[in-house]
Amino acid sequence: MTNTRKRIVSGMRPTGPLHLGHYFGVLVNWVKLQEEFDCFFFVADWHALTSEYADPSRIKDFVPGLVMDWVAAGLDENKCVIYQQSAVKEIAELHLLLSMSTPLGWLERCPTYKEQKQQISQKDLNTYGFLGYPVLMSSDILMYRPEAVPVGQDQLPHLELCREIARRFNHIAGQDFLTEPKDLLTPDAKLPGLDGRKMSKSYGNSIGLGESMETIRPKVMGMLTDENRKRKADPGDPAICNLFPYHKLMTDAETCAEIEAGCRDASWGCVDCKKKLVESMDGFLTPLHDRRRQIENDPERLRAIIESGNAKAREAAVKTMEQVRELIHFNF
Amino acid sequence: MTNTRKRIVSGMRPTGPLHLGHYFGVLVNWVKLQEEFDCFFFVADWHALTSEYADPSRIKDFVPGLVMDWVAAGLDENKCVIYQQSAVKEIAELHLLLSMSTPLGWLERCPTYKEQKQQISQKDLNTYGFLGYPVLMSSDILMYRPEAVPVGQDQLPHLELCREIARRFNHIAGQDFLTEPKDLLTPDAKLPGLDGRKMSKSYGNSIGLGESMETIRPKVMGMLTDENRKRKADPGDPAICNLFPYHKLMTDAETCAEIEAGCRDASWGCVDCKKKLVESMDGFLTPLHDRRRQIENDPERLRAIIESGNAKAREAAVKTMEQVRELIHFNF
Ligand code: SF4
Ligand code: SF4
Repeated sequence: MTNTRKRIVSGMRPTGPLHLGHYFGVLVNWVKLQEEFDCFFFVADWHALTSEYADPSRIKDFVPGLVMDWVAAGLDENKCVIYQQSAVKEIAELHLLLSMSTPLGWLERCPTYKEQKQQISQKDLNTYGFLGYPVLMSSDILMYRPEAVPVGQDQLPHLELCREIARRFNHIAGQDFLTEPKDLLTPDAKLPGLDGRKMSKSYGNSIGLGESMETIRPKVMGMLTDENRKRKADPGDPAICNLFPYHKLMTDAETCAEIEAGCRDASWGCVDCKKKLVESMDGFLTPLHDRRRQIENDPERLRAIIESGNAKAREAAVKTMEQVRELIHFNF
Repeated sequence: MTNTRKRIVSGMRPTGPLHLGHYFGVLVNWVKLQEEFDCFFFVADWHALTSEYADPSRIKDFVPGLVMDWVAAGLDENKCVIYQQSAVKEIAELHLLLSMSTPLGWLERCPTYKEQKQQISQKDLNTYGFLGYPVLMSSDILMYRPEAVPVGQDQLPHLELCREIARRFNHIAGQDFLTEPKDLLTPDAKLPGLDGRKMSKSYGNSIGLGESMETIRPKVMGMLTDENRKRKADPGDPAICNLFPYHKLMTDAETCAEIEAGCRDASWGCVDCKKKLVESMDGFLTPLHDRRRQIENDPERLRAIIESGNAKAREAAVKTMEQVRELIHFNF
């Protein structure tokens, strides 16, 4: 059977267990995409080194953990290719070749470069590899000659750089061999953290996909709500309440409408609202937890998923690199 | 049989046919080293891309040509490993891993970096790959965990950088796994070009290793000699004559002494001196030309040399990378 679906590529760094923010920001989209596209989803373990090079020991455990999170979220190994970046050595080769034709200025001007360096100030990111992050990312993508890449608004400059790198390669090769991937903008359904800031494990404001309801319940009950609503008798405003976005994503539409109305006319209190959210979250997380338990108890299947994905990704990469070497005259 | 000889690694870029300057500057030393060391000599085709990325088409032909020059010069595939850098994908992987822990400052401060960028001003060398040249070179070397590296004085900063990169890796890995190669300083027997400047094909002042005596003869007869010696009756000074270094390298010591004395007392003229040099060069080049003809007429042997060398180099690289991945926790 020939695969006529359009191909897309996307990856995630193995830097720890995923939380609801990752799920609603990225994974829910991936789960949809696997129905429509020929999806290549990879664990970006080499990328994790750009920030974790000084102590890479934890990356190892995070790799299988990430794949388990993906499977729990609903990725299906029969519908998409799940693989590990570092299992495809051809990516390192393409990275080396593309590094030769990538102007330093393109990397230094990359808007995310200086930003990230400032944000992650506790680590020394003045490394060659960190500067070259977009070259590695481009190799990850261009290797599979995809039609498109699912990206958030903030990653658009990287994707544009990736296209420029492809164009330059094609110019040198004298042939439009590497595709210039389109952007498949991810719907912006970001979930705030428990405290209203961006959800992040390091802020302590996240709910892990694998977390049990026992630890989730007190977190939800302690969430910040509409601060102007001091008493139950005061009307509230779901539009500025930190809890309501959670309902919108996990509670059915009808109930959401009731909550919204009840909050505004003060007939519905925050404690009940939180209890309801705990219930919704339980309902939402149960199938994820079930799938996670299954894969956790079946290490052979986990290994098989990764190994067969790696084999498929490698097969595609080997084909691309044969052409790439031919085009830049590296076959003797 | 276990190989107990100390290992060394060295490479050359495939950027064109070699000339006498290469022979006396590097190759004559390699030919000696293969008797004493476990030598890994590689065709640096990826390196050639740092300057030739815009038109890599010629690298392809230069690779077999370079190996033929090496064999002609006396490298013996049974005494050393002759291989192609790009045939060992593990080098690209090590390059990627080392790039993560190499500070940008180390590369930017590298004394040869700005120098080369200025020298080769007709090409745009403001690329990511050009800046990272020492990281790739370090990967080439460190991959084989050598005892030493034969270098010229001018390459010492690169080797020191290579050792720093090894130290940093070992620090992260918590184990002195990568060796810090010593420098094996190449005796400085540089041969000037026909016009007294550095011998270089682009200056048009070189004599190719594969060149026939028919084209060499007029070149030698037209060489610049001691400019103060206008007539045969004027005494000359071999110490400032551009021809004499050629005699020292290719004419027997006794004859050299005669020439030196005869030049100084004007009993020996420049035309005769040049004729004598043509003779010496013929004697010197004959065995090289014979070996070259043999290998040129035996493409299967050429292919076998490269392929068996590649296989040996790969085998060693695979072993190193297994350990490297284990040490930085990249084996799952
Ligand atoms: S009732 Fe619900 S939506 Fe309204 S303020 Fe309280 S927690 Fe927020
Ligand atoms: S005799 Fe020979 S060494 Fe003396 S100046 Fe002439 S060419 Fe040079």
